[in-house]
Amino acid sequence: MAAATPALPVAELLARHQDTLDRALAAIAARDYWSPYAEFPKAYGESAPADGKAAFEALLGREFDLPGHPAGGAPVGSETSPYGLELGIGYPHAEPDALLGALEAARPGWARATPAERAAVCLEVLARINARSHEFAQAVMHTTGQAYGMAFQAGGPHAQDRGLEAVAYAYAEQTRLPRSASWTKPQGKREPLVMTKEFTAVPRGTALLVGCNTFPTWNGYPGLFASLATGNGVLVKPHPRAVLPLALTVRTAREVLAEAGFDPNLVCLAAEPEGAATAKVLALRPEVKLIDYTGSTGFGDWLEDNARQALVYTEKAGVNTVVLDSTDDYRGMLNNLAFSLSLYSGQMCTTPQNLLIPRTGIRTEDGERSYEQVVADLAAAVEGLLGDDARAAAVLGAVVNPGVLARSAAAAGGEYGELALAPRVVASAEFPGATIRTPALVKADADKPDDRARFLAECFGPVAFAVAVESTAAAVELLRRTTAEHGAMTAGAYTTDPAVETALVDACLDAGVSLSLNLTGGVYVNQTAGFSDLHGTGANPAANSAYCDAAFVANRFRTIEVRK
Amino acid sequence: MAAATPALPVAELLARHQDTLDRALAAIAARDYWSPYAEFPKAYGESAPADGKAAFEALLGREFDLPGHPAGGAPVGSETSPYGLELGIGYPHAEPDALLGALEAARPGWARATPAERAAVCLEVLARINARSHEFAQAVMHTTGQAYGMAFQAGGPHAQDRGLEAVAYAYAEQTRLPRSASWTKPQGKREPLVMTKEFTAVPRGTALLVGCNTFPTWNGYPGLFASLATGNGVLVKPHPRAVLPLALTVRTAREVLAEAGFDPNLVCLAAEPEGAATAKVLALRPEVKLIDYTGSTGFGDWLEDNARQALVYTEKAGVNTVVLDSTDDYRGMLNNLAFSLSLYSGQMCTTPQNLLIPRTGIRTEDGERSYEQVVADLAAAVEGLLGDDARAAAVLGAVVNPGVLARSAAAAGGEYGELALAPRVVASAEFPGATIRTPALVKADADKPDDRARFLAECFGPVAFAVAVESTAAAVELLRRTTAEHGAMTAGAYTTDPAVETALVDACLDAGVSLSLNLTGGVYVNQTAGFSDLHGTGANPAANSAYCDAAFVANRFRTIEVRK
Repeated sequence: MAAATPALPVAELLARHQDTLDRALAAIAARDYWSPYAEFPKAYGESAPADGKAAFEALLGREFDLPGHPAGGAPVGSETSPYGLELGIGYPHAEPDALLGALEAARPGWARATPAERAAVCLEVLARINARSHEFAQAVMHTTGQAYGMAFQAGGPHAQDRGLEAVAYAYAEQTRLPRSASWTKPQGKREPLVMTKEFTAVPRGTALLVGCNTFPTWNGYPGLFASLATGNGVLVKPHPRAVLPLALTVRTAREVLAEAGFDPNLVCLAAEPEGAATAKVLALRPEVKLIDYTGSTGFGDWLEDNARQALVYTEKAGVNTVVLDSTDDYRGMLNNLAFSLSLYSGQMCTTPQNLLIPRTGIRTEDGERSYEQVVADLAAAVEGLLGDDARAAAVLGAVVNPGVLARSAAAAGGEYGELALAPRVVASAEFPGATIRTPALVKADADKPDDRARFLAECFGPVAFAVAVESTAAAVELLRRTTAEHGAMTAGAYTTDPAVETALVDACLDAGVSLSLNLTGGVYVNQTAGFSDLHGTGANPAANSAYCDAAFVANRFRTIEVRK
Repeated sequence: MAAATPALPVAELLARHQDTLDRALAAIAARDYWSPYAEFPKAYGESAPADGKAAFEALLGREFDLPGHPAGGAPVGSETSPYGLELGIGYPHAEPDALLGALEAARPGWARATPAERAAVCLEVLARINARSHEFAQAVMHTTGQAYGMAFQAGGPHAQDRGLEAVAYAYAEQTRLPRSASWTKPQGKREPLVMTKEFTAVPRGTALLVGCNTFPTWNGYPGLFASLATGNGVLVKPHPRAVLPLALTVRTAREVLAEAGFDPNLVCLAAEPEGAATAKVLALRPEVKLIDYTGSTGFGDWLEDNARQALVYTEKAGVNTVVLDSTDDYRGMLNNLAFSLSLYSGQMCTTPQNLLIPRTGIRTEDGERSYEQVVADLAAAVEGLLGDDARAAAVLGAVVNPGVLARSAAAAGGEYGELALAPRVVASAEFPGATIRTPALVKADADKPDDRARFLAECFGPVAFAVAVESTAAAVELLRRTTAEHGAMTAGAYTTDPAVETALVDACLDAGVSLSLNLTGGVYVNQTAGFSDLHGTGANPAANSAYCDAAFVANRFRTIEVRK
């Protein structure tokens, strides 16, 4: 049932967001810095942090309201904040048949909308999410354990950037062919052949987003908005420990869709009881034609192998490497690496795990530094960064789940090898229940098989390996093999030697990983910027796609031609 | 070993082909008629047909020369022309290890070339193929059975169009990101963050082209040139009955690559002994990252299910439908359909199989025509078109293989149902050994289960069904279901009723097939034009991709970023 007069006509949304869309299209082509979403918390107004906190607190301990959403039986939900708080939110629960039935019923009207109309609706959704960035920050913080500042930026404006980027790509790809064209073929002296041709971008069907625990919005928005902007309905299946940020997203999308005259059931939430393995059931449903997934390699591989009726976009585990050869800013290098290892307790898919350091040491502006010195200096840099508990908590955030905590404990117990830096328990004055650990730095030797077995497996969380290698050449080769065999979301290197740089670039092009060179300032290997940096490459086992390029969106719709 | 001074510097090729590339890029955006390759045989000069024939004849009965190509043991080949001629050509044969080893060794230099350089080399390959279109026409004619005129056009300039189209898309997609960008992020009162970023399009690896019997060049060139232009090596595995057109293509590509200073083994030929099932072996090799395939559903499904290390682009079988509702040009409609059914003996993946005609008849400019009348008139139109043996042979070509001949014979024997038009044996004065059959038109009833079972299975070749349906609405629904369940490369319809047109368009958008409406002149439902029409949609079971759109090329390479 289409509303005769929508509360928010699409024409108005088109006018409201045309400039942002145009600028996003220019940005993805130019790749310079750009964002329409302010990343400074203060940009949202004096009272915004408190308002956001109040809005978040009003959600706690009650049923989450999703008007018109399929539901049946008792609400589900058991989120616990890594900062110690029980969220106590119950989300509407519905069986797959009810959810997919509602989505299928909702799809036709959205499929008939033009790519520009769909983009405008998506941009309105993002604008409303943006306006509530402080509320989202609370939700992200208390599901992922990210510190507030990071939850705000990465979970708010930076995630919104990635969503808008996907919308821009979706719009661009759907409009590469003209909506209609005339075709006139000369026939010598006879009348030319003349035809009119119409090209329509047709969605695949229903998309399934399988959310992750650590970055529900940042890793969720690219797939969600790419699928939605190409005309598909989206069923959002959050990680059971990180439902709220995506539930708020679903609610916002449904509000905008309904106001604009579309069926809000185009975007539904598949909240699940603990241990229900709902994703496995949904992923195999014939209605599901697209799947976006971030998480473990095991389930990502399972999706790729089994959900054959769908196109599957996965980001899985990897082993990220940094090569240390030489630097003209030793202090800058150490501080940059210390921050990279510490940020969000190393719980980023982009955090370096293995730091490859020649046994013979590295060259710096002050002369040679031995492997032992570099490791000790790096440990000291981490200790310096995290020496104050309040500052440490603001960088580290909290440990997201028991698996990560177990790895930190295992490192502390020496299970991964000799410790260059032991993890430390950090107390939070604000959140006494928070679980906070500093990173462990483990010494390893590339030529010892037992060490290799440990550092070549993903060790997600606050554990890094300082790996002694025979030479820089051996380090480059180890970077290449690690990436090609185990996957990587990032690679980093420090060198002042042009020949080494060339070898590093060749290795990264060959192994299929993007490379950050000589980061010593305010940019970190584990961060990528929307509209400029690609996140992942799709060219190594860690992911089969990237945020965001044409390949990420171009197959989410097909083009049907009518000629006469 | 790179030649110090290539015979044909890439810079020269860039200059030579820049204008063609620019115009191709404009054409795929505008979708009006355009081609750089003349489709009239006379455009190639007075002596070109005879020269092409002589060149073809010089190839017969000897070993096919591919300088520097991996080989070992006896040459292989057993092609027999559907026109009765034994080709007697022996192609170099090598084991998969030798072929893939040569390809892997050849890849690095090509991967380092820029997208523009690769496009220029591909355009030179196409230009040389174009200059020899009459030779290719002979090769296509005597492997596929296409009549000379069609072999020339579809196997020559039209195939070259599709190849160039793929090159243009490949170039466009690889250059959507800048080669390098600077990124400057303001930091309030502090110095801005500044980085330089380089983006490199990196190929997947080796591509495998599995060629088909009926259109070795037309269906082969999109995948071949899409993969090559995105930096991959290509291993060409022709259909054992249609090796020569692709062998000539491989030879031309190798010549240009070598002259331009690249390793000619970037493009290799996997000719195989009869019954060797080489495609199955090659498709599972870890080096093979891309596969393009045209052929049976059985092997296409096998590739999709088993070649999991590769991206698989398939065009398989389908059941194409035409709906007859009403027309204001009855004669034009009949003649158009008669030609569509007859062209190349119905051996096109785009030939209509099922003509759905309301039991109550159709409306024409001269009043109603009953189902029986329409069927009889269509049969008469086919007989009129093909009454003269010489003209019939020029339209029909020859039967490509024993399977098709068996279906024609089965139709003649009444196995598919009552005949409205029996197939006729056509004699060729020029080729007494040619196997030529006119189409059979079989009557069927959509409401009889036995009839449905027959016309809903693909019946590739010169057999069409005139299916009586309850109403136009029932016809539209049958078009939708046939396409969604069995796949279709084309759909056609005749109607003067806007409501029926709307229902047809809705059904085609829903089922995922492109629609040709009211074709009564010199354009046929089974033909698509490069740079304007999409061939297939990738939205129904007949194919998972289309010629040509961004999705066809965008995932054949990945982008690696280096930032510092």
